[in-house]
Amino acid sequence: MESMAEANESAAASIPAATNPMVTPLLTDQYQYTMAYAYWKAGKHRERAVFDLFFRKSPFGGEYTVFGGLEECIRFVANFKLEDEEISFLQSVMPRCEDGFFEFLRQIDCSDVEVYAIPEGSVVFPKVPLMRVEGPVAVVQLLETPFVNLVNFASLVATNAARHRLVAGNSKTLLEFGLRRAQGPDGGVSASKYCYIGGFDATSNVAAGKLFGIPLRGTHSHAFVSSFTSLNEIVSRALQCRDGTSTCKDFVNLVQTWLNKLQHAVSLRGLTGATNESELAAFISYALAFPHNFLALVDTYNVMRSGLPNFCAVALALNDLGYKASGIRLDSGDLSYLSIESRKFFNAIEKEFCIAGFGKTAIAASNDLNEETLDALNKQGHEIDTYGIGTHLVTCYSQAALGCVFKLVEINNQPRMKLSEDITKVSIPCKKRCFRLYGREGFPLVDLMIGVNEPPPMAGDRILCRHPFIESKRAYVVPQHVEELLKCYWPGKSHETREELPSLQDIRNHCMQQLQKMRSDHMRRINPTPYKISVSGRLYDFIHFLWLNEAPVGELQ
Amino acid sequence: MESMAEANESAAASIPAATNPMVTPLLTDQYQYTMAYAYWKAGKHRERAVFDLFFRKSPFGGEYTVFGGLEECIRFVANFKLEDEEISFLQSVMPRCEDGFFEFLRQIDCSDVEVYAIPEGSVVFPKVPLMRVEGPVAVVQLLETPFVNLVNFASLVATNAARHRLVAGNSKTLLEFGLRRAQGPDGGVSASKYCYIGGFDATSNVAAGKLFGIPLRGTHSHAFVSSFTSLNEIVSRALQCRDGTSTCKDFVNLVQTWLNKLQHAVSLRGLTGATNESELAAFISYALAFPHNFLALVDTYNVMRSGLPNFCAVALALNDLGYKASGIRLDSGDLSYLSIESRKFFNAIEKEFCIAGFGKTAIAASNDLNEETLDALNKQGHEIDTYGIGTHLVTCYSQAALGCVFKLVEINNQPRMKLSEDITKVSIPCKKRCFRLYGREGFPLVDLMIGVNEPPPMAGDRILCRHPFIESKRAYVVPQHVEELLKCYWPGKSHETREELPSLQDIRNHCMQQLQKMRSDHMRRINPTPYKISVSGRLYDFIHFLWLNEAPVGELQ
Repeated sequence: MESMAEANESAAASIPAATNPMVTPLLTDQYQYTMAYAYWKAGKHRERAVFDLFFRKSPFGGEYTVFGGLEECIRFVANFKLEDEEISFLQSVMPRCEDGFFEFLRQIDCSDVEVYAIPEGSVVFPKVPLMRVEGPVAVVQLLETPFVNLVNFASLVATNAARHRLVAGNSKTLLEFGLRRAQGPDGGVSASKYCYIGGFDATSNVAAGKLFGIPLRGTHSHAFVSSFTSLNEIVSRALQCRDGTSTCKDFVNLVQTWLNKLQHAVSLRGLTGATNESELAAFISYALAFPHNFLALVDTYNVMRSGLPNFCAVALALNDLGYKASGIRLDSGDLSYLSIESRKFFNAIEKEFCIAGFGKTAIAASNDLNEETLDALNKQGHEIDTYGIGTHLVTCYSQAALGCVFKLVEINNQPRMKLSEDITKVSIPCKKRCFRLYGREGFPLVDLMIGVNEPPPMAGDRILCRHPFIESKRAYVVPQHVEELLKCYWPGKSHETREELPSLQDIRNHCMQQLQKMRSDHMRRINPTPYKISVSGRLYDFIHFLWLNEAPVGELQ
Repeated sequence: MESMAEANESAAASIPAATNPMVTPLLTDQYQYTMAYAYWKAGKHRERAVFDLFFRKSPFGGEYTVFGGLEECIRFVANFKLEDEEISFLQSVMPRCEDGFFEFLRQIDCSDVEVYAIPEGSVVFPKVPLMRVEGPVAVVQLLETPFVNLVNFASLVATNAARHRLVAGNSKTLLEFGLRRAQGPDGGVSASKYCYIGGFDATSNVAAGKLFGIPLRGTHSHAFVSSFTSLNEIVSRALQCRDGTSTCKDFVNLVQTWLNKLQHAVSLRGLTGATNESELAAFISYALAFPHNFLALVDTYNVMRSGLPNFCAVALALNDLGYKASGIRLDSGDLSYLSIESRKFFNAIEKEFCIAGFGKTAIAASNDLNEETLDALNKQGHEIDTYGIGTHLVTCYSQAALGCVFKLVEINNQPRMKLSEDITKVSIPCKKRCFRLYGREGFPLVDLMIGVNEPPPMAGDRILCRHPFIESKRAYVVPQHVEELLKCYWPGKSHETREELPSLQDIRNHCMQQLQKMRSDHMRRINPTPYKISVSGRLYDFIHFLWLNEAPVGELQ
């Protein structure tokens, strides 16, 4: 194997290592190394192979998937190198293998590997390769497991986030709160990253905030509320006004005055009862620490009888000093009812005390939310502005895995096809180019795969698009616009220009645009219209020629 | 905050950092830091708080859970220290907080935190604390998210592994093959670790093999088979005999001779047809590379017509040279039928060619296996020796999250209780000790929680065990043996002896013993008998006194 070419060396230098330091060439299945040895022993290890990475079915009963994980794959490829101690470890578990093989492993990198991919954050569909990876068979095999690992969960959770955004609507703030329930530390960190790509606004996960620049959110928990017992605990009671011109010497007293007013306000009668003093102490303490961002969790004792009036008393006292309270969070109970009642309470206060804008105080809700509960809330009516979503979002509870696979489609210029009695498991052979054809209204109509040597489809042409396996499913399409899907992210030794890795923000924006571009019936939560994927007439004929002969013999021209 | 005490300093020195370098004090929810600031502002940050980590319901519809993740939590605690750049980041996201707070953060470590826990690998039950964490409230709050994160998935996947082992039976070999479908890189690595603890025998994950010393397994994939076209590709055809005394010059020819014999053997007639030559080439190449460990994936083309006879021809040729083939792997189709037919084929060969032991050639099966498919295979009958299990195992597909929580139970020696209208969400207050009471047959009877100042239960005594919330559920128990569950794993500034962290192998052995000890009706896959957890009469009375008064006022003596 030659040393890394200059161009790629500089490319690699500019690409940082994978975010998780555990992503090394050993993060793969043992059989990739045993196969590498068998290839090496047979003298086949440098044979040029093309693999497609694709999935067979969109998750969550939907018809679309958001592609995530590409940047991490490219970071992995750019820094692929086995360390001496890793090779020693492999030697220890493959003790009968010849030394020459470990010498080979010591020398390999990905300088002779080419990676083409659909841009990260794109809306993608089954069977169409998300990535096409070409290179020496023994090297590319080693990439299979980490690539599939890095893409599977990333795409799954980005899709899940996009689905939650679609149900919640664009006007709501969506917060990812899943770290504690995620599948391990970087289960949480990856979830934060890919939920942001899929349309969430912020995360509670500080590590993800630092690693990726995702906005952070967080206030306090029930434990904070329960840790207080009485107002006597509050020693420093002074709070400076927002404009700095004066200081309220006893903020506790100001809050108590407001609580008293609330309890005697005619329009609120019956809404307020005996509020919990320890809760009030917690709220006041939190407000003293964060007068600019006072948000209170109001359900530790009783939302309507205690949490809400306590919050309002503090919010009104803050208002006296020029601050605007951020809002409340509901973490249990009937979120529809409680949010509506809370809104009424805020509105009544706005009216009673002439506090402009108080009625618009934000209401956040959390507690085991998922697509179904968001949908139910929409149907029942609610006054929630912000959702905090954890478990169901980050573990992809309703479908915890996406079945991405990595299939050999060509070796030594000879097409390969994985057959199966299960038609959904048959892979589409040949090194391919992939296109998205757009109609007059700007919606994507169909994705089309062709052999690399075929002429690409052109806007305005009449193009035959065929279902890859079912003869009767075919149509002529005249696209208004044609987009090539697979772009070069790692050119290897070729002279192709390498696509720059976009920033997280750009990936997120791209994702939002892509989702917006789709025809809405493909995006329905229940019973969506299938989006069509197709192959050219020539590729169709070739697939069926191969299939009939049950063994790969020809080559697509 | 004082500097770390000497004893703990040496303890910390001996405990390595968490396995995943992403596990730092920033791997937590933002609100832990905002609360820490509010505690600090209120002068409450050093108040001594006790938190319980527990779950409310065993996963997968079962009545037991395997506790995992403790070692990672202790590693985290032992190395807990905020780096300067981490503090700078926190300053950037909490720009209005006073400098003194960041000074405080700079100084904190876990030298004043005490962690008691049930030994890792133990069988554990709902509501009983897996860990009791005590220390300055602001510090312990920062541990909440990472602890819950580290325990949740670890316990979930260890339990899932144990359940798969229980269905498969002790005689089967269980391989974890999940890396590619896992939720991210360490979703895979953690799954490998905790599946091993829960009873799996090996993993395909090389990184996990290196990190934890878990046995590795792996041979080849369909791509390997499809990468060959004909026997002409095999250039080096020589294979030395196992005993080194001679060399077979043309192993390909020897295999072909055997294939011919198989095709003409009377007892096998009808079983063999036209085998696929590219598959045979792949098998021979693999055998030439791994004559000591020849295991072939036999379903790329057709198991009965091609894969099985090809495998047997190679295995018989290897047998001529003194090697014993490892076996076959089935990755599709009717695994019950195919394994039984394969066994018949092996037996017929053993008889036809008088090859002792050939009938016992191992049969491995993979392909989306889970508890249900293992159970179905048992009912249908099969001849499988080894299962390779991936997706369902490592993503815990049937229930992707365990709901561990971390609840404040005491602060400043004052008990705290989280109330809820949902009885299953009410937490059990007070700093507690926990015991497992064993009956005459050696089975655990009940877990018992008591206040730390109560006299502990003694073997032979008549002990009142009460359901924590339901008055009518209570019984006297006379235990044969009493085991204290919570042991000191991190003594903080106390003089308690620190339990050593056991090796992974010891944790696994402990888990196997614990599972064996359980009464089988608690372990049933469907409709298991609930295992009882209880509180002492005194703790019961105190809980209900607190509950009635809806606010914590007293102290349990």
